[in-house]
Amino acid sequence: MKNKIINASIIIIGNEILSGRTQDTNTSTLAVWLNSIGVKVSEVRVIPDIEDIIINTVNKLRKKNDYIFTTGGIGPTHDDITASSIAKAFKKKYQIHKEAFKILESYYKTGEFNEGRQKMVWMPENAELILNPTSGAPGFYVENVFCLPGVPSILKSMLGSLKNKIVGGEPILSHTISLRTVESEIANSLTNVQNNNKDVEIGSYPYFQAGKLGVSIVIRSESQAKIDHCNSEILEFVKEKKIEIVDR
Amino acid sequence: MKNKIINASIIIIGNEILSGRTQDTNTSTLAVWLNSIGVKVSEVRVIPDIEDIIINTVNKLRKKNDYIFTTGGIGPTHDDITASSIAKAFKKKYQIHKEAFKILESYYKTGEFNEGRQKMVWMPENAELILNPTSGAPGFYVENVFCLPGVPSILKSMLGSLKNKIVGGEPILSHTISLRTVESEIANSLTNVQNNNKDVEIGSYPYFQAGKLGVSIVIRSESQAKIDHCNSEILEFVKEKKIEIVDR
Repeated sequence: MKNKIINASIIIIGNEILSGRTQDTNTSTLAVWLNSIGVKVSEVRVIPDIEDIIINTVNKLRKKNDYIFTTGGIGPTHDDITASSIAKAFKKKYQIHKEAFKILESYYKTGEFNEGRQKMVWMPENAELILNPTSGAPGFYVENVFCLPGVPSILKSMLGSLKNKIVGGEPILSHTISLRTVESEIANSLTNVQNNNKDVEIGSYPYFQAGKLGVSIVIRSESQAKIDHCNSEILEFVKEKKIEIVDR
Repeated sequence: MKNKIINASIIIIGNEILSGRTQDTNTSTLAVWLNSIGVKVSEVRVIPDIEDIIINTVNKLRKKNDYIFTTGGIGPTHDDITASSIAKAFKKKYQIHKEAFKILESYYKTGEFNEGRQKMVWMPENAELILNPTSGAPGFYVENVFCLPGVPSILKSMLGSLKNKIVGGEPILSHTISLRTVESEIANSLTNVQNNNKDVEIGSYPYFQAGKLGVSIVIRSESQAKIDHCNSEILEFVKEKKIEIVDR
């Protein structure tokens, strides 16, 4: 598995993100977690609660990626159509998942496991469960497509039970250098460093904090040695140009 | 223009979003603003700073949408490749934009308009400028593709100069009803309302606030009358079920 890059795409399903009503935070949560287990996010798509679009997007991306993560649309209401759409994407039956039924039957008090809640145990045939320690209703996966809820706190709590289901590559390491400068001052030097280190990802991000301008340079690679090498080249021009290094 | 839906897609360009290092907020800013001028966001894609991917994504989406908005990648550093990629997408020359050059020449003090900063005036041939009241360097557009910066505060400040360049349809109106209940209690009733009002978008969003569970129901349409009708059908079952309405 070493040195092979493992890719994932994230599909955020929900009109509330597209309308701007809700600020998505699941992308960042998933991306940070995936990096830590050696999976690189190659693309994110935010799509509406429309069956055809969900089916087409999942089918297009699952062939191009090692893993797909969807968020949203697995609750009990009419606009929760992820599970039935995934069933159609894989041409599988959409049916009651017996284990999920048992989990929710014992999770709720007698009489509370009503028709609405029972919708949440309908899944594609042979789906595997992703346990939910927060609110009972499990997520699920079919082949390489992992379906998680949209509520950020519940999604976060499910990452633990997801971990042993994902095989990552080398964790993607990163190092940040924060400088009291503006991008235009360092652009040429940084281009040279990038050209000397083509297989390292160097990003430059201006910021404005406490009334002062600065630039964060982020170096990313699976290899600590490559990051260190890049770092030293950057520190060289920083010293030459007498630029202040900032603790952030 | 009435009743025709005007669609846009947003392309967020930046490795820092895909790595989870930076939380994107531009999607929500743009979506809320676009809704207010009658443009519906149909899709968002987050893609890396890779030329081929930028070109392909822009060329695929610009044919499917009335408008495309890109964010990120128009600064002075090596990872800022949006302008040159857009030039390639449209098979146009990538060259110095004379008007942009004049703007930045007078924006900076003598001697400060250095080589790094001059990179920001390279644009696709015949690009039109989007003025930047915050930090000088303009965005630009080619046909229906509008290229904005990634820094949220700068992007926000440019919406004013963008407004007269976008022709929207009817503004998309929305109404939210917040209920002290859980989704499973109202799922069936809400499905009925949605079935009775197929051209209205009804979303159901559970929340947890100040220790209490609740559900926000969001009704969206270009027609206030349709929203009102939907709203009254919802209030009917809310009353029947004796569910508390919450001020949020």
